[in-house]
Amino acid sequence: MDANPPPPLITLTTDFGTRDGYVGAMKGVIRTYNPDVLIDDITHDIPPGDISSGAWALRTFTPFYPAGTVHVVVVDPGVGTCRDAIVAQADTQFFILPDNGLLSWIHQEATHLKAWTLAPSAWRPSGNSHTFHGRDLFSYAAATLACSRDLSVITDTPIQPHIAPWARIQEVDQRAVGLIHHVDRFGNAITNLRLPNSLEQNAWRIQVPDGPYPSQPLRRTYGEVAPGEALALIGSHGFLELAVRDGSAAETYGLRTGQTVNISRHQSS
Amino acid sequence: MDANPPPPLITLTTDFGTRDGYVGAMKGVIRTYNPDVLIDDITHDIPPGDISSGAWALRTFTPFYPAGTVHVVVVDPGVGTCRDAIVAQADTQFFILPDNGLLSWIHQEATHLKAWTLAPSAWRPSGNSHTFHGRDLFSYAAATLACSRDLSVITDTPIQPHIAPWARIQEVDQRAVGLIHHVDRFGNAITNLRLPNSLEQNAWRIQVPDGPYPSQPLRRTYGEVAPGEALALIGSHGFLELAVRDGSAAETYGLRTGQTVNISRHQSS
Amino acid sequence: MDANPPPPLITLTTDFGTRDGYVGAMKGVIRTYNPDVLIDDITHDIPPGDISSGAWALRTFTPFYPAGTVHVVVVDPGVGTCRDAIVAQADTQFFILPDNGLLSWIHQEATHLKAWTLAPSAWRPSGNSHTFHGRDLFSYAAATLACSRDLSVITDTPIQPHIAPWARIQEVDQRAVGLIHHVDRFGNAITNLRLPNSLEQNAWRIQVPDGPYPSQPLRRTYGEVAPGEALALIGSHGFLELAVRDGSAAETYGLRTGQTVNISRHQSS
Repeated sequence: MDANPPPPLITLTTDFGTRDGYVGAMKGVIRTYNPDVLIDDITHDIPPGDISSGAWALRTFTPFYPAGTVHVVVVDPGVGTCRDAIVAQADTQFFILPDNGLLSWIHQEATHLKAWTLAPSAWRPSGNSHTFHGRDLFSYAAATLACSRDLSVITDTPIQPHIAPWARIQEVDQRAVGLIHHVDRFGNAITNLRLPNSLEQNAWRIQVPDGPYPSQPLRRTYGEVAPGEALALIGSHGFLELAVRDGSAAETYGLRTGQTVNISRHQSS
Repeated sequence: MDANPPPPLITLTTDFGTRDGYVGAMKGVIRTYNPDVLIDDITHDIPPGDISSGAWALRTFTPFYPAGTVHVVVVDPGVGTCRDAIVAQADTQFFILPDNGLLSWIHQEATHLKAWTLAPSAWRPSGNSHTFHGRDLFSYAAATLACSRDLSVITDTPIQPHIAPWARIQEVDQRAVGLIHHVDRFGNAITNLRLPNSLEQNAWRIQVPDGPYPSQPLRRTYGEVAPGEALALIGSHGFLELAVRDGSAAETYGLRTGQTVNISRHQSS
Repeated sequence: MDANPPPPLITLTTDFGTRDGYVGAMKGVIRTYNPDVLIDDITHDIPPGDISSGAWALRTFTPFYPAGTVHVVVVDPGVGTCRDAIVAQADTQFFILPDNGLLSWIHQEATHLKAWTLAPSAWRPSGNSHTFHGRDLFSYAAATLACSRDLSVITDTPIQPHIAPWARIQEVDQRAVGLIHHVDRFGNAITNLRLPNSLEQNAWRIQVPDGPYPSQPLRRTYGEVAPGEALALIGSHGFLELAVRDGSAAETYGLRTGQTVNISRHQSS
């Protein structure tokens, strides 16, 4: 077992919303079995069953957490069906979640990723339900792992986690065709296009073939355009993002998940 | 005083929303008077003044918290009127809240429940308002209780807490008429019908007389029906629940709070 | 440096919403650089770019936090433009935020307020972006300040923070004209009118010239009017507030931000 000993820190990412007591039930289980752990809410407003949004959320925050953090992720439209419940170690981070594609972005960028189905010991000892694995399995497994700091107490059979087709990183060299896979709270449209590190900014041209979004050069920051104007830039996550300064690119230009985005490099010196 | 010594753990359940600084004011009071306490947000999105939703939320998460936890609940349409502000001990848990029915589910299932009006010592020492008891009374009382671990510092007169008529558990034997009392974020309709523990699954029939929800057998898990299909099952909270796999029963079949649900047992051995 | 040593307590107030992983990225940075800190979510649902709402939120919760708390505030429509990023000390509290008016209410009521631009040492050591100062600058600066307890490690040039015209406290003597600057989750309309401490309650009259809100005396608490009726009272924040008992003043009477509110004192003994 080559796991780093996890510190007592657990994050929660779910589609449970915040109108009900479901997130509270998860926290209660963790507090009961590991009273000293720190719990960070990440989001509970992943749209119900939207695995793509959940997978992307993981990509945006987990790289900034310390080694050994245990991330519990419950976006689980298949609860009660035959999907596996798993624990994964991606480099120095731990993930406890259903195996339905939620690890797709993490998997592509991790240097080392291992995954196992959850062992029977990962289930809460009593009163389990068939429909609330977030409370009865994932939270208990996380409390146990963060407490024992020993992966073997909750791992069973090694598996290859499921990788979803919509999370395919497109590395850009001279030209590429990508797609919008997420629209965030501000209406920014995020693509799967990743540009080379040392890029000549003015050498690139971005186009959305379908719809009114104007053809754009690549910008560095919002300040380069006037308020209300469109701009394309490398987002804080490292991928090409289509935005509007002080506005919503999604609302202004009708951008939406699944749309094609073209990028190409001029031959001008 | 037979209270278990409470650990320094406080949960917050309110209808304050998260657009304003009101929840922050409560946390600030707690941090000021008890810097070592853990604070867990449960939900701040109970619909404004919706005591029924608040009471049900308590039922779904408090059973999973460790002994001694202090639950602060502020859904208080009567703030500034003559409703009492109380502290209750239900078995090993503590509740600080307005006496308006929020304890209705807890009260029915607790083995031992005692309640008292809050003593004058439960008020924040300075600068109190007539309209924000969440900050000036309930949060301060919780910080004090979690710090002193002595109920007597905040209790005054023993009372019987108010129990609301909409929270009446209906135990099912051969047949029963219940009602939908909550629709959750996923559109699941939760009833007040509780079935015997050792049940023959196929022996039951569930009907909603008013509306298109199809007559159903009792299922165990979502995987027993196809995506988009209706199913009735025992929810993770132990009550009968009407759902749609990968969908919203409330949207698909117009289920809503207050609707009657019938359940009956076949005589076929 | 006359700062109180800050305890390891950081609050977060943003307009990032809770659908994305952005808040999680901030928490991850704080956890990485200061594993022992307590983090309190205040709100992440400030409307995107709404500096006025963010400034008012600060006014409603920061007075209740203990001395030395570090408040991180990210409502930053000008990210990537020339607005300054600053740290401020207002009496015993610390603020890390963009200098765009967010301190307007705090500044008017603080006895001592000092502010500085953030030093280069306030930036996260690696991988910074041009568009996510919440993660790469404000969170790291807060973690550093809460850890070192020494303001000098993150301060650079002293400045006067920007004060916005919409946050002008109107002290009321005999009569005054104020305005609604915030409508809260419950539909209460909050004004910038502050009344003298020892006020004769019946001596005041409140009017909204534009619209149907009825002319009102000043009330002390919701219980003084029937459910559904309008009332004007001093809110828990100390300012005149227009409300409806068990209802929404904003919905019932069309109250909105920017509307004029008149108050006058009768000459009757």
